[in-house]
Amino acid sequence: MLNVAVIGFGTVGSGVCELLTNNADIIEKNAGEKINLKYICDIREFPDSPFADKMVKDFEIIANDPTVDVVVETMGGRGAAYKFTTMALEKGKSVVTSNKEIVAYCGVELMQKAEANGARYLFEASTGGAIPALTPIAQCLSANRISRIAGILNGTTNYILTNMFTHGKSYDTALSEAQAKGYAEKDPTADVEGFDTCRKICILGAIMSDCLVCPDDVKVTGISKITRKDVEAAESFGCKIKLLGVAEMCGEKLSLEVSPYCIADNVPLYGIEDVFNGIMVDTDAAGTVMFYGRGAGKLPTASAVVSDIIDIAARKGAKSQFAPWKDGKDMLAKDEREFAYLMRVGGDVADFEKKFNICAHITEENVVAFVTDKFNAEEYNSFCKILEERGYSVISSYKVFA
Amino acid sequence: MLNVAVIGFGTVGSGVCELLTNNADIIEKNAGEKINLKYICDIREFPDSPFADKMVKDFEIIANDPTVDVVVETMGGRGAAYKFTTMALEKGKSVVTSNKEIVAYCGVELMQKAEANGARYLFEASTGGAIPALTPIAQCLSANRISRIAGILNGTTNYILTNMFTHGKSYDTALSEAQAKGYAEKDPTADVEGFDTCRKICILGAIMSDCLVCPDDVKVTGISKITRKDVEAAESFGCKIKLLGVAEMCGEKLSLEVSPYCIADNVPLYGIEDVFNGIMVDTDAAGTVMFYGRGAGKLPTASAVVSDIIDIAARKGAKSQFAPWKDGKDMLAKDEREFAYLMRVGGDVADFEKKFNICAHITEENVVAFVTDKFNAEEYNSFCKILEERGYSVISSYKVFA
Repeated sequence: MLNVAVIGFGTVGSGVCELLTNNADIIEKNAGEKINLKYICDIREFPDSPFADKMVKDFEIIANDPTVDVVVETMGGRGAAYKFTTMALEKGKSVVTSNKEIVAYCGVELMQKAEANGARYLFEASTGGAIPALTPIAQCLSANRISRIAGILNGTTNYILTNMFTHGKSYDTALSEAQAKGYAEKDPTADVEGFDTCRKICILGAIMSDCLVCPDDVKVTGISKITRKDVEAAESFGCKIKLLGVAEMCGEKLSLEVSPYCIADNVPLYGIEDVFNGIMVDTDAAGTVMFYGRGAGKLPTASAVVSDIIDIAARKGAKSQFAPWKDGKDMLAKDEREFAYLMRVGGDVADFEKKFNICAHITEENVVAFVTDKFNAEEYNSFCKILEERGYSVISSYKVFA
Repeated sequence: MLNVAVIGFGTVGSGVCELLTNNADIIEKNAGEKINLKYICDIREFPDSPFADKMVKDFEIIANDPTVDVVVETMGGRGAAYKFTTMALEKGKSVVTSNKEIVAYCGVELMQKAEANGARYLFEASTGGAIPALTPIAQCLSANRISRIAGILNGTTNYILTNMFTHGKSYDTALSEAQAKGYAEKDPTADVEGFDTCRKICILGAIMSDCLVCPDDVKVTGISKITRKDVEAAESFGCKIKLLGVAEMCGEKLSLEVSPYCIADNVPLYGIEDVFNGIMVDTDAAGTVMFYGRGAGKLPTASAVVSDIIDIAARKGAKSQFAPWKDGKDMLAKDEREFAYLMRVGGDVADFEKKFNICAHITEENVVAFVTDKFNAEEYNSFCKILEERGYSVISSYKVFA
């Protein structure tokens, strides 16, 4: 029997308790032993919960109970979650988390602490929700050199962008609808400005390179400035705009970026719509592989948490699927990659095509949209300068994902 | 150090040798020890191969070498492959295979033999090629009840169908082009008649239900009777026709089927094109998850084989990710599921819509195409009888995947 304590009885924590109860038979079969939910720790009262008899308010009770094998941290943040995770690992208890913030900021230290104490630190649920991603990448693509991981990693922003494309909504309307449906929070900043995606792509980057870059060091652009006109320009070239987290090896270094990209319909991520997430992995032997599913939600996230608990039971004595991470502070590449750009440019658009020898769509009065040749950062800046010198103003510009 | 012997130096076997050599550093890191290619067994001569010094013709040498830990069987078929696999397992050597035929027909016995001899029998490469599928389903969705697995599991047929849809080719032209590009064999029967897909869906069905149904007991329909007119009819309803393997739980029983299905664009499998494969899994907690990638090819298949070798090194002492399989001969469900059908019907099509109260497209003279309500098998047969009684003939009919 494996004894589990859940800390943080919010959406995900209560989902984990529900799933451990409802699917106890199949979980026991796959774990090879019974998984017993022994404690739930939360400072709030839940007198009417079917789990009321398991509630404790003091984490010390869990930390000091030697029969607790696994602590499930579904609190979020880096305050109490960090303190309790550290305490649990130091007592040799394995920790499973859905908390992307703590993994992205403290993963190196917490993995080392787990290793030093003969425990495991697992976080499949932190990235891609229900989607099996971190474990399959580390374990099933283990014979490959991975050159790039690109993902639609945030369901809220993908829902908003899908709504703008498919139903012609403005950004503000699409955001309001996402809030009304409970897909976006009242303060949507972390989602729409790309910070949530950033934490996840830092974790994926670490799976790829064994180096964890701090999310604060990554250039992040969100979706709040995307307009209907940008959407229409992308559509006129058969493309969509999607918010991507991209981690790419540049020699020994790692490029990390969160940005809205223009995506053509031959890219597998093109078809990932609504609240779904997709994680695309480019490798040398397997080619391109993609994982698709629900990136958030109570039971989808609980599915990933519980699969990690089962893994702890079933893999006793086995090597972790993850190589130990190093601090990636010197790992970030100066970005020298080349991209084509989808641009919208204002000015005297007559003869624009001829002047620049480029296919351009006049999308509104005095505005053209076009896709450039491939430029590196310097060439792109030179091109923008030329446009400016000839009296044009760049209204918007999106890298084309290829 | 883990010593490996590859038996069968064909496309996949030589890919395994190449990958073990080219990515030796990353493979050693992920395995936790060096993976040493000790022998290659083939009855043919390869004097110019860079691996010539490892070639042996007699499998006994490998079977009787106690330092060989893992045998990689990439021979195909059930003759010598079965004999050598059995010999290796009986000597306590683990076996990794890409051979779907042997797994689908002999998997129960070979898994038992592995278990009895303290060895492992792994076959990630047998289904979905490079795509991490069997392991992630068994391991990362282990907290879920899986209700259905549906897959585009054969790249050859998907390439042909994509060509018929996207480029308006006939079946015969699309097949010839697939043969010219090396995607289809000279005798394409196993692919186009669905037998290859059948073996793979039997394996996926066993991952889902722990019961392996013999492929010979499964109803299989291939793609060779699909016409351009069928394709156009599907397109007129915004759908595509794809060859699917479908395994679905029906209570305690299992429904297994290989058939061309009509698929609408809200199904994730809709976007799987060309030689790519997609495996879609419906679960109770995680919702729908899909795995996408290359289903065949030298290095993609080798990627899956080598990940299994790494797993053997890294998971020493751990429980297998797969529950033992039982023989599924009493497992097959009488199919009582309901489907809508895309039908093409000939006859006096004037007023067809009014007569049957159905939206019907007149696609050519005296032919209508329409999508029916949902019918179970009995209702569908009754409907066909009514059509016949009123003087209509059914030209073609496809289940609609939902």
